[in-house]
Order: sequence, then C-alpha cells, then structure tokens
Amino acid sequence: MAKPTLLYACPTVPAAPWVAAFKTAMPDLELRVWPEIGDPAEIDYAFVWHPPLGLFPQLTALRAVFSLGAGVERLLDHAEIPAGMPLIRMVEPSLGADMAIYVTMQVLHYHRRMPEFARNQRQRAWVALDVPMARDRKVGILGYGQLGALCAERLSAFGFALSVWSRSPKDAAGLRVFTGRDRLEDFLAESEILVCLLPLTEDTSGILNAKAFAAMPPGSYLINVGRGPHVVEQDLLAALASGQIAHATLDVFAQEPLAEDHPFWRHDQVTVTPHVAARTQPQTAALMITDNIRRHRNGECLLNLVDRSLGY
Amino acid sequence: MAKPTLLYACPTVPAAPWVAAFKTAMPDLELRVWPEIGDPAEIDYAFVWHPPLGLFPQLTALRAVFSLGAGVERLLDHAEIPAGMPLIRMVEPSLGADMAIYVTMQVLHYHRRMPEFARNQRQRAWVALDVPMARDRKVGILGYGQLGALCAERLSAFGFALSVWSRSPKDAAGLRVFTGRDRLEDFLAESEILVCLLPLTEDTSGILNAKAFAAMPPGSYLINVGRGPHVVEQDLLAALASGQIAHATLDVFAQEPLAEDHPFWRHDQVTVTPHVAARTQPQTAALMITDNIRRHRNGECLLNLVDRSLGY
Repeated sequence: MAKPTLLYACPTVPAAPWVAAFKTAMPDLELRVWPEIGDPAEIDYAFVWHPPLGLFPQLTALRAVFSLGAGVERLLDHAEIPAGMPLIRMVEPSLGADMAIYVTMQVLHYHRRMPEFARNQRQRAWVALDVPMARDRKVGILGYGQLGALCAERLSAFGFALSVWSRSPKDAAGLRVFTGRDRLEDFLAESEILVCLLPLTEDTSGILNAKAFAAMPPGSYLINVGRGPHVVEQDLLAALASGQIAHATLDVFAQEPLAEDHPFWRHDQVTVTPHVAARTQPQTAALMITDNIRRHRNGECLLNLVDRSLGY
Repeated sequence: MAKPTLLYACPTVPAAPWVAAFKTAMPDLELRVWPEIGDPAEIDYAFVWHPPLGLFPQLTALRAVFSLGAGVERLLDHAEIPAGMPLIRMVEPSLGADMAIYVTMQVLHYHRRMPEFARNQRQRAWVALDVPMARDRKVGILGYGQLGALCAERLSAFGFALSVWSRSPKDAAGLRVFTGRDRLEDFLAESEILVCLLPLTEDTSGILNAKAFAAMPPGSYLINVGRGPHVVEQDLLAALASGQIAHATLDVFAQEPLAEDHPFWRHDQVTVTPHVAARTQPQTAALMITDNIRRHRNGECLLNLVDRSLGY
C-alpha cells in the first residue's frame, strides 16, 4: 500500500507545530502543507480549517476530511465539499481538558458572585455577600456530548446541583437529564448558571433567545462556549438590561473577531474572550487523526465521523 | 451525668442558625447564647469567635474552647484563656469544600490569564493570548494541612503541575513535596501560581516578603487565603509595581475590614474579597463540635486539638 498523503490546509493556523506533531505521530505519513500541495490527485486526506476556495475540486482522490475544530457547521455548509465525503470532527483529550477548565472557571466565578465582589471592590465596600452551598446552586449544561460530560464530571466534584439537556436520551449517573425540545424550558428553570456547549445546527441556532432567558431563574448567568449564533444578541442585551440575566461570559460570537463597535466589548455585565475556551493541541490531535487514517486504511470504521443528518 | 452546657460566645456572628444546628446535632445539649449566660460556673464548653473581654475569668468550670474559625491565632494570644485550656480549631467538610472552590476558581482564573483578557476587553482587542497546558503550569500550595490537601485534590483533576510546602514531612502521592524552611525558596521557584493556606504562627508571619516574591518566577500570581499578616504588604506592593508579581488575590488582611484608604482597594493588579473564601457552616460544624463533646465526656481524646507549641 502506498504511503498515505495528508494535506494540511489551515491557512489561519501556523503549520510548524502540526508538521512536527504529525511527523511524530505517523513517520510514514506524507504531509503536504498548503499551498505547496504537489499533485492534487495524490492527496488521500485533508486536514482543514477555513480551507481556501478552489481547493476541493482539485482533490480528485480525496477520501476523508478532518476538521481542526470541534464545530463543523462551516464545513458542512461548504459549497465545494461533496455531500458524500466523510467528515471527521475534532475530538481529542486536550481540547476537552481546556474546555473543562474554562467552564469550571466561569461557573465558580458566578457561583461565588465575583462580579458583585468586583463592583464592591471598586466602591471600597467590605460586604460578605451570601453565597449558597454548591449543592444548592443549580448549574445547567446545555448539550451533553463528550465536552459536556467532561465539564459535568469536573463540576460534580465541587458538589453542584447539575442538570443537563440533550437532544437525544443520555446516560448520566447522578445528574438530572432533560431530553428533547419539549423539556428545554423545564431544564432552563433549573439553570441559575447555564453553560451552552451545543453544536450549531438548524435546530440550535438562536436557541438562547428571549423565551429561553425568561424561562431561567431571575438573575441567572450565561456562559456561551458553543457558537455565536446560538445566542440572539438583541435578546441577550435586553435580558441583561432587565437583570433577568445578571452576567454573561461569551467566548464565541456571530461575527468573529467581534466588531470594534459591538456593545458586548464595553458592557459591564459581559465578559468577552476571543474564542479561546478550548484549543486543539497538535500533539494529541495528530494522534487522533493518524489513528483514524490507520483505521480507514485497514477498512475499519472512522471515529468521530460527522452525521450529516444531525449536523454534528 | 448532667447534661453538657455549651456557651455560644460569637458576638459578631448571628446566633439563630447555630442554635438550630446545635439543637439538631445534640438534642440534650444545654446551649446558652451570650450575653444570657446564666450561672457561669455551670458552663462546660465555650464556642467562640471574637469572644468578649471579661468572659473567660467567670467560666470557672470550663473544660474546652471550640473556635468557630480554622485560624486560632487570636485565641492562642487571648490574655484570658488559660494556657492549659484545650482549644479546638474548626475542621468541618463545608469549610474545606468552600475553600477548595475559592482556590480552584482563582488558580484557573490566573492560569487562563483572565486579568489580561479583561484588559484586552476594555481596549476592544481580540487577541488569543497563549496559555500553557495545565501540566506545564506550576502551581504551589504553601501549607499542606486538611485544606491544602483538598485544594490539591481538586486542582489535580485539571492536570496541573502541583508542588506543596509544609513545615513537617507529608505524604502526598503525585505531588512534589518540599519540607522545611530551607526548601522554601526551591518550592517558591516552582510556584507560578502560589496559594497561601498556612496557619498564622510566629514562624509564618511575614513569610510572603520581598525575598519570597523574588524567589518566584517573574510575573507570578499570589492567592492569599491564609491570614493577612502572612503578607508583608509593602513588599507585595513593590513586587506588583515591578511586575515580579503580576496579580494578587487577597481574601485576608492585616487589618479587617480593610481600611477605606488602603491601596489594595483600587489597585489594578489586586483582587480583594472580604474574608469570604471559606465559611463555617452551622449544620456540619455543629456535628463536629457535638461529636467532640461526646468524645470528651466518654474520656476519649479530642479531635482537632490545637498544639500550642506549633500554634495551630
């Protein structure tokens, strides 16, 4: 069997750490880095993020596309990737570990009322605000896939009252599980601190809207680490203004980078981070990809394959 | 045997939740709430925090003193508590759980460079700052008692490179342990994020001074949840000004409440909270105290007894 050929086509991501990681993970892999693609008909696999237009029609022997990120909505909508092409989303341990740190950090921050302590500090006010015990603090995780499960595991260690919501039934020992759209409002009523970890699909776009915010307990907190379009921005601004949402942490936005004149930047009740909650690490990600390439060449099924009918 | 009599003498702490908790924990306990102390010669045990002057000389039958807080340095220095009187510090699960949440929250906050992301947000700057993987982030816990061990357990789940320092040798699987004053600087060199959880004693007062800060890696972070006098405030202000310490979280202060004109309040690199990192919960604490009272009446040894030679 000829050596497998992988094309690295992530123009916005520095290639050097990936080249090193792939070399270590699979020494007999032939790695080509866009735009030096050589004979496009020799390329078996493509590893992509914001791939350049005009590329895919050249890759006549392509057998699978690997995504650098966990969210694949842009690749699913990509006009040049054939509908039958296997698409693999990014699942790797460092990305999950990163996400669990970010989510835990912000859940603890809100649980302990740190935005209010910060306001008191600016006013030189020494006030020991009441904080409930963790077991009395309702935390909801919207989207219970691999990332949601890892976040729930970390948060459980602190004793929070955890609820999770997912489209399809899930096993989740020790958690309250809400399944399906008709249980969404019941779930939101149990979410004083809400973490959005959904994939972006037709069903989930705009799911965090005025109706959703109204279903949450008054003065709740939102942490969006899913995708920007999950949030209806005008509805969130209104919920922040009324105090229905006390504070929001947003790592993802409908338009990225966030426009310089966007109201989120200078909003007292909004923490903005520039899409950094979870990063894919070359070392561990290259192992997942090359393992999958070996499986594919041995005729085994691909892991972390996107289900196009579900959109993730 | 007569019913045991416990005096509640915590003038700064509302008594009602404690009265309820003691009633549940030990229905046959006679609880008296200062200043309604009845016949002082009938009081067997005292549960105190900032006890009023003039009280102890009246308690002629007193057999042990229970502290509401984990830190007992003020009770050890109390002019009216006899040197031979058994003194019990507060060890109870809610206090530990609270401390682990606060410490993890601030360690994650610094690990993920949140003060810098906040500065960038104010400047509307979309910059994905580099963050090391948790295994490459050196976190040091100064003081490895029950609270330190619980914090280390929580932080270990995130994969941090943890070091601990204690006065006496400790078992701590999976952690780097530094023991004794002559290993303090080696320990500090391994602490990009330093958590102080020491008891306040003659040996530890002023331990966080210019020399200690200089031993830490440049641009480190300090979280003080021990006692205010652990920190030499002028040295910390100098280390913040030079950038040797990038940011500090201070929950305890030499003078509490923190004076209104204190520079920490409005310092850009200092997070102030008003001694709220860990609170004693009446329900669980009353169980520890009444369990100890039962042990004492059965002639068993008291748990969590303060060693006056060590000061904690």
